[in-house]
Amino acid sequence: MAVVFSDDEVAAALDGSTAVAAMREALLAAYDGRLVAPPRATAPLRDGRLVMTAGQLADEWYGFRSYDTFGHPDGEQVVVLHDARTGRIRAVAVGEEIGSRRTGALGGAAVDALARPDAGTLGVLGAGRQAWTQVWATAAVRPLREVTVHSRTPAGREAFAARVRAELGVPAWPVADPRAAVRDRDVVVLATTSRTPVLSAADLAPGTHLNAVGFKQVGRSEFGPDLLDRADVLATDSPAQALAYDPPMLAAEPRHAGRLRHLGAVLAGATPGRTGPEQVTVFCSVGLAGTEVALLDRLARATLPRA
Amino acid sequence: MAVVFSDDEVAAALDGSTAVAAMREALLAAYDGRLVAPPRATAPLRDGRLVMTAGQLADEWYGFRSYDTFGHPDGEQVVVLHDARTGRIRAVAVGEEIGSRRTGALGGAAVDALARPDAGTLGVLGAGRQAWTQVWATAAVRPLREVTVHSRTPAGREAFAARVRAELGVPAWPVADPRAAVRDRDVVVLATTSRTPVLSAADLAPGTHLNAVGFKQVGRSEFGPDLLDRADVLATDSPAQALAYDPPMLAAEPRHAGRLRHLGAVLAGATPGRTGPEQVTVFCSVGLAGTEVALLDRLARATLPRA
Repeated sequence: MAVVFSDDEVAAALDGSTAVAAMREALLAAYDGRLVAPPRATAPLRDGRLVMTAGQLADEWYGFRSYDTFGHPDGEQVVVLHDARTGRIRAVAVGEEIGSRRTGALGGAAVDALARPDAGTLGVLGAGRQAWTQVWATAAVRPLREVTVHSRTPAGREAFAARVRAELGVPAWPVADPRAAVRDRDVVVLATTSRTPVLSAADLAPGTHLNAVGFKQVGRSEFGPDLLDRADVLATDSPAQALAYDPPMLAAEPRHAGRLRHLGAVLAGATPGRTGPEQVTVFCSVGLAGTEVALLDRLARATLPRA
Repeated sequence: MAVVFSDDEVAAALDGSTAVAAMREALLAAYDGRLVAPPRATAPLRDGRLVMTAGQLADEWYGFRSYDTFGHPDGEQVVVLHDARTGRIRAVAVGEEIGSRRTGALGGAAVDALARPDAGTLGVLGAGRQAWTQVWATAAVRPLREVTVHSRTPAGREAFAARVRAELGVPAWPVADPRAAVRDRDVVVLATTSRTPVLSAADLAPGTHLNAVGFKQVGRSEFGPDLLDRADVLATDSPAQALAYDPPMLAAEPRHAGRLRHLGAVLAGATPGRTGPEQVTVFCSVGLAGTEVALLDRLARATLPRA
């Protein structure tokens, strides 16, 4: 019988280093073609859609995540992991954690590849689940000295900072002004639900690495378009998915698309990443398909012997 | 946390009457538009595809079944049931039982609607999982006096007959000749994996009802095309799905499509079913999408209080 993971079980069993290592492997596999990730498949229902994002790693596993667009605040997803040799289901995860942990861990892999080796300060805009997993994963790849966080409500940013101190053991402070929260930070995480810019190029110090997790499309973006012009290095976890957004992704517009790098290629050493301490590097997170299944595979292997 | 059902748990918890009642409701809901069942969504992987068949019942539930086309003999599926009010996942089934029980129960609903009221003998071609659930569901809608079964191997048909006697308490006999197995039977179930005819119109007595579960397409069909010409009543659980097959379904060819009735319409009294004891009635089973979720909903409600 397949093992089933709840959100609490995922959160308890998964550490940042393991998750980032799994995502690094998945990015390399996507770059060299072993990880197959087709476009999402959609089934229209009444007032919403069910969506399947699938993936297969060579002869190891295949599976999918399903989610829907009904917009229920407590809606749940599933991730299903099949053994590619037998078709049997090895594991199922019910909830949200696998999805947000893998997005966080992709961000951690980006920080590790693109931020300065000595990066130690982190500024965060946003205090939700996505912001949290970005910090969780960043703490696994850089020894953080300080986290500053801004979100719209004082209670939200205070709780977030307290959680960083408690769970990650890193000094953390809520900041009322978004610009102050990211000023002179080595790493910046943008993980808001804003459709209008909360940050622009002028807010970033030379040498900063930024993970852009929220909206980043033409007409709805949490950062100003000048941010991409400012970036010396622009990378994504899936150029194919970045090119398929509607409305188009800012980083996929003609003047950027040619320089948008595959993070897997950077990890493989096939494309350069940061080449100097003053460069600004930006990671446009799109959520490489198949990586939820890759993370569930890692979790299942850590939790029980392979069938 | 969602409740998770294994195949053994589904088999133990689900009786034929309950399953047929659930499918009857689903057929009526599909006919009156409350059950939404969009075309299947497909994600291509290496050497196979993942497929999602989804459904939504008004404001009650939505969900899907996933399966793949890799052809693993022991491959497993999932069925996922969401509460339509909250988006939360109420139940997940892992394995094959929900899928084959719902196909059986759709067949049981067809037998109940179309076979003679006094039908008591059943002939079966095929001895696999699909043949079994057809007999299981038919026994829930007609008091069976005798089951005769033919399949390619003596061991297979003997084991099947023994299971009918043991689990359903109905006299049952293996028969070496397929024609003899269906001769003068009130109900016939065709549930083989054959791509060439194993039965033709001449093999059926007047008054027979037949459930066609296996291949029924142009160029690959377990029955001869004259069978449909012989049918006085031709019905299916989803005319829309019947029309979407590739290669085309025999019952969807121009000379039949106009008289292919929606089983839900028959159940609703909007279209006549059998109108005389000598008529031959044929049910072309296509597996109405969303019905796996409907059956899981019924199972979950029977097993635990609604969230």
